[in-house]
Amino acid sequence: MIPLSPADRECLGRARVARLATASPDGQPHAIPICFVFDGASLYSAIDPKPKRDPKRLRRLANLRANPRAAFLVDHYEEDWERLGYLLLHCRVEILEAGAERARALALLAEKYAQYRDMPAFGEGPVIRLVPEGAHHWTSAGG
Amino acid sequence: MIPLSPADRECLGRARVARLATASPDGQPHAIPICFVFDGASLYSAIDPKPKRDPKRLRRLANLRANPRAAFLVDHYEEDWERLGYLLLHCRVEILEAGAERARALALLAEKYAQYRDMPAFGEGPVIRLVPEGAHHWTSAGG
Repeated sequence: MIPLSPADRECLGRARVARLATASPDGQPHAIPICFVFDGASLYSAIDPKPKRDPKRLRRLANLRANPRAAFLVDHYEEDWERLGYLLLHCRVEILEAGAERARALALLAEKYAQYRDMPAFGEGPVIRLVPEGAHHWTSAGG
Repeated sequence: MIPLSPADRECLGRARVARLATASPDGQPHAIPICFVFDGASLYSAIDPKPKRDPKRLRRLANLRANPRAAFLVDHYEEDWERLGYLLLHCRVEILEAGAERARALALLAEKYAQYRDMPAFGEGPVIRLVPEGAHHWTSAGG
């Protein structure tokens, strides 16, 4: 991983939603909104269970296995365009199907999002680990 | 382009910000937040001028020229997870450097976003046209 600035770490700690862009090996882009947690080094996001029942989710995981790179975006939009900003992280992706790191990530996700604690199927699917390898921070204010 | 449902068209007409995912020809994903306008068939977004001074922007345009495909995402997040949703459009991308279509798109953008009307450099850069070729609509409520 790369070192992140205190401002970037604070941004990752505060954000409730991010957007994850992936691509098939032949370069077809894909994007979804995701919930995630940042443990200070990596980002973790739970994949909904039952992917076998959903061809689109199966394909997304297949894409990630074949091309384990992602762009992770946290941004801020408001109508005052002096206050726009985003943090883009280029990440290496690992899919955690089992094990202690996956269990720890699920606990962190449930700690951050109360919503997960009420979901019976939470924790049944894989967890993706995103390891930042490049960061680009931009604000309209130039900060 | 593909036919979009009335709900999807309404979503595109209302949204103020979207996220655009692209990929380099070898599959490195990229994502940025964008402002855009929907004319009922295509989506248009203005690229900031002065790309020659910004190597990252130059690379982004080079990526789009080499791999003119994008994923265009409009989503809704709130803490009530019964009310989540997104619209993902797989798009073909065209870069408009000049001409009547570019001028019309800039006029539509300035009509939608008052912020552009006060920007001296608005309209100096290229405009990208996104032609939807596939749509995926999801809501947590199943609608």
